[in-house]
Amino acid sequence: MSVFTPVPQPVLADWLRRYAIGRLVELKGISAGVQNSNFFVTTTLGRYVLTLFEDMPRAELPYYLHLMAHLARHGLPVPAPIADRDNEYLGTLQERPAALVRRLAGASEMAPGVEHCTHVGAMLAGLHLAGQSYGRRQDNPRGPAWRAATGAEVRDFLAVDERAMLDDELAFQAAVDLEALPAGPIHADLFRDNVLWEDGRIGGVIDFYFAGHDAWLFDVAVTVNDWCSHDDGRLDAARVAALLAAYHAERPFTAAEQAAWPAMLRAAALRFWLSRAADFHLPRAGEMVLVKNPDEYRDILRLRRGAVPPLPGAPA
Amino acid sequence: MSVFTPVPQPVLADWLRRYAIGRLVELKGISAGVQNSNFFVTTTLGRYVLTLFEDMPRAELPYYLHLMAHLARHGLPVPAPIADRDNEYLGTLQERPAALVRRLAGASEMAPGVEHCTHVGAMLAGLHLAGQSYGRRQDNPRGPAWRAATGAEVRDFLAVDERAMLDDELAFQAAVDLEALPAGPIHADLFRDNVLWEDGRIGGVIDFYFAGHDAWLFDVAVTVNDWCSHDDGRLDAARVAALLAAYHAERPFTAAEQAAWPAMLRAAALRFWLSRAADFHLPRAGEMVLVKNPDEYRDILRLRRGAVPPLPGAPA
Repeated sequence: MSVFTPVPQPVLADWLRRYAIGRLVELKGISAGVQNSNFFVTTTLGRYVLTLFEDMPRAELPYYLHLMAHLARHGLPVPAPIADRDNEYLGTLQERPAALVRRLAGASEMAPGVEHCTHVGAMLAGLHLAGQSYGRRQDNPRGPAWRAATGAEVRDFLAVDERAMLDDELAFQAAVDLEALPAGPIHADLFRDNVLWEDGRIGGVIDFYFAGHDAWLFDVAVTVNDWCSHDDGRLDAARVAALLAAYHAERPFTAAEQAAWPAMLRAAALRFWLSRAADFHLPRAGEMVLVKNPDEYRDILRLRRGAVPPLPGAPA
Repeated sequence: MSVFTPVPQPVLADWLRRYAIGRLVELKGISAGVQNSNFFVTTTLGRYVLTLFEDMPRAELPYYLHLMAHLARHGLPVPAPIADRDNEYLGTLQERPAALVRRLAGASEMAPGVEHCTHVGAMLAGLHLAGQSYGRRQDNPRGPAWRAATGAEVRDFLAVDERAMLDDELAFQAAVDLEALPAGPIHADLFRDNVLWEDGRIGGVIDFYFAGHDAWLFDVAVTVNDWCSHDDGRLDAARVAALLAAYHAERPFTAAEQAAWPAMLRAAALRFWLSRAADFHLPRAGEMVLVKNPDEYRDILRLRRGAVPPLPGAPA
């Protein structure tokens, strides 16, 4: 249960008076999520999600909240943050930074098919295109520097063959030229559990708290690695083709991206192998972290270091 | 059918490229509405309503669009306008000012009960409270000056007793002191057909194109006259009490409002009697206006000139 900070009903009822969304009807903790305390909040005027930020620096939160607001304003189904009567998105509740966002409908699809991947590819391109006019900038918190640093932290815990692959991969990635790739705000964590489906359509893209400025192609790679992989990590050719074609139709890939694609799939696999290995080998005290098996992304990285399908539009 | 300006599918598909909401899937004219051309637009990423403004001056449209955006940002279920990739809400399509807004779910309730009136009262207070921080100002286009001018235009078409009531009412209203009443952006047309219900809750408040700056109490009066009246125009005491109590709980009425309440109910009745009489007696050429019977609001005005129930919080 990811409610680290309880919120008594009368405390919330009082706090909601800073908003114009009516009276508290129901408050319910949400079990998903491993970083923050989340609640479903129903008022007389609507349904919202309340988040208390447990560890994230307050100064970094406006980037995420305004990004969500920006994307929602551009018509994308992301949770729009709710402004209080002073026009602020970020408040304080139980001594934590706190924000309300609109609750979106739908449920995750953990066994996606080709159709789902088509929708996800189009949506991801929409997010990138709409993000172009976003005025704030914050680097991807799990970007190249983080990957190098975290690699150094976890390598001593790895088996010999894993360590060899890690060293080789970090050296390979350090030589990739990222400057040529178009960049902007990316979601950076568009896994199956962060997309809500309703009647076969995307009703919501949630959890923007890993977002940051980085190569768009890195976001595509994170997404393909999750949505288009079989259980053993092998890519499913039909799903890959569907996702990439839908993305390409909205935002055509550049020649530089075509060249960088195999490296980006590896970088995206590396990023999740490293974060899971760090959570596994270096758990932080006192946190109720749902530890995911790092082996899944170790295997995906190993596979992506082999041949991968090209991007659409690449020279044959 | 209120589609004055047709929009061919390929034209729209091309126009949508300025947005980040994917590809056109379906385009369908909407029969409701009498002023503008409206369409349901479904894309690969969501469901929207497209409006082509037929008569409204382009310079006045940002007030409405930004007001809707402001209220949506504050968590109220109003149709949020969609920004294009240049961050603009207002575009041009088929040589008309045009805007996309998010499509809301639900259906109108034309036989509201006490529960509905409770929700509507709370929602209206929420709109007024959230509107306090809205930065733009445009006067209520159907305010006191319009009522006086329109009264002069239609009086010659009225029966003798109607004309006497109109003259008396205009004289009475001219003497009402509006300065003492708290004011802000008001919806000004919150009739039953402009509220969408979903599972007994308000899923949407639509049609902000009569909004403007005016006394909040005028908005309450417009709303009570529609939601709380029997077919013959008499007020239903239970519905009036429910709507006003719910509003009062969010935004307590002031002493000045308690004093002005009977006059505001009359002003609100007058406003709709006059617009319907004008549409009936002075139809504008070439328009497909759904002409509503002016007698309904003539009768409501006549009844409101008698005794009306007081606002909550008034001295006994």
